[in-house]
Amino acid sequence: MPSTTTPVSIRRITDESASDVEDQLAVEAPLEIVVVARAARAPDARPSALQERAPRRLGITMRTPGNDRELTIGLLFAEGIISRAADVVDVDELSGPSGDLVRVALAEDVTVDLGRSERALAVANASCGVCGKASIDVASCAPPAPLARGVPRIAPRVVHGLAARLRGAQPVFGRTGGLHAAALFDAGGALADLREDVGRHNAVDKLIGAALLAGRLPDPGAVLMVSGRAGFELVQKALRASIPVMVAVGAPSSLAAELAAAHGMTLVGFARDGRFNVYAGRERVDVAAEAAS
Amino acid sequence: MPSTTTPVSIRRITDESASDVEDQLAVEAPLEIVVVARAARAPDARPSALQERAPRRLGITMRTPGNDRELTIGLLFAEGIISRAADVVDVDELSGPSGDLVRVALAEDVTVDLGRSERALAVANASCGVCGKASIDVASCAPPAPLARGVPRIAPRVVHGLAARLRGAQPVFGRTGGLHAAALFDAGGALADLREDVGRHNAVDKLIGAALLAGRLPDPGAVLMVSGRAGFELVQKALRASIPVMVAVGAPSSLAAELAAAHGMTLVGFARDGRFNVYAGRERVDVAAEAAS
Repeated sequence: MPSTTTPVSIRRITDESASDVEDQLAVEAPLEIVVVARAARAPDARPSALQERAPRRLGITMRTPGNDRELTIGLLFAEGIISRAADVVDVDELSGPSGDLVRVALAEDVTVDLGRSERALAVANASCGVCGKASIDVASCAPPAPLARGVPRIAPRVVHGLAARLRGAQPVFGRTGGLHAAALFDAGGALADLREDVGRHNAVDKLIGAALLAGRLPDPGAVLMVSGRAGFELVQKALRASIPVMVAVGAPSSLAAELAAAHGMTLVGFARDGRFNVYAGRERVDVAAEAAS
Repeated sequence: MPSTTTPVSIRRITDESASDVEDQLAVEAPLEIVVVARAARAPDARPSALQERAPRRLGITMRTPGNDRELTIGLLFAEGIISRAADVVDVDELSGPSGDLVRVALAEDVTVDLGRSERALAVANASCGVCGKASIDVASCAPPAPLARGVPRIAPRVVHGLAARLRGAQPVFGRTGGLHAAALFDAGGALADLREDVGRHNAVDKLIGAALLAGRLPDPGAVLMVSGRAGFELVQKALRASIPVMVAVGAPSSLAAELAAAHGMTLVGFARDGRFNVYAGRERVDVAAEAAS
């Protein structure tokens, strides 16, 4: 297991004192992703122009080391390059010129449009920069199949408890204060899995990649909890994985709420300190049942 | 001025009650960026193969509307496509097929390598996803000129006050809880300028773009304050703008601290609640002077 934190000598200054101490920082380091796949035929190529199966460099992600296979699978899934674990034949963790490298070999029948993929991968970062996506189309972000209405039901007392459970289960945050977490719970509030990363998008990709590799998706009862805010892109990743309920400790954006509402997903924000707000899909938050019980 | 928040009907649930109320969300919406410039000649082209000056689509950023010109200029500057305000001849805000569009006309002597720029723009998002950068090279992220050593001096009491001043000056955050802020202060703690965005990278690009357009950069006394964490990419943006001191309310990453130390920049983290940590460039934090005064 690679180290997710690194020691550093710092000067700690308070109102009353200044001292030199050892501290821990969350590690941020590059990971290069190479995909071995048959390239999609260019629209203007002759039908006989078969493309060879060749390694293609998709790009570099800055991430916290650890769970690199899961991160890669989750990212390829989120971006639509693969649609199931069986699309992946082999995953190798290697050393590349820029540091760590993951090489993913895809199945014979999976083709990759590299130009499109590069653009798609760029949109993974939509919440904080420029992407190459042709347009932002809420309708095109639909889940593979419509989400089941009213399933699961989640009680408000369960939502109230999620933030504390997430924080309690975060092994690294307590040491650095610098890592985002994403976790899957069931509707009763039982923790299924958790991943951490300096990037909140990466934490979700690691979590969904792990669930995909373990055959645990789609799960019509899944509840996704994220430690930060909920932007457009995180809701998009949850929809792609057919997750019906997403709970954020922080605020959603306007487009995140719009996207969740358009596809019948439940989106909860500001879930902390004994309160939360439901921005979409309120029928899954079972206030009446709780009051009656 | 476009709206930075939008009203939304939500269900607010506390330990004791559930009520339907109106809330405000931070707006997240796409902005398309088009650059009109002479393309860089391909390495294998004949010297006589002059490239025309043509509009090129750099990509789409998800951002909070407002200060779109500044965001665009700041982003082009951060990515090395322009190196001064004079490299920009004209900026138009238009309506494009995906919504808002900014078209930037560059000076005759500025060429743009579109392939490289697309990769460079992708790296703007390095902290939360995949980029196309060839490698992450700390040495290559040097400021245009070395930062002056020991300048400015900033007193601990000034650092202690920055978080409250940042929050007090954030017009939108109080309404939504969902916007990051970036601000420039002087070493005495006086606020020079502040920008907000759902993306913390965007907030810094808007701030630096505004300073560039106003001719206020480089400023050897500038202190950059950010409301969130300090990742590699934010330190890179500050270095590119020759800002000597960066203060974050949240945690830095390992690579952010390494990058700041490599180029003599002062990096402060966890600046809140009467304490802060100095991760690099501690000589600018003037503990002795304060104790003596």
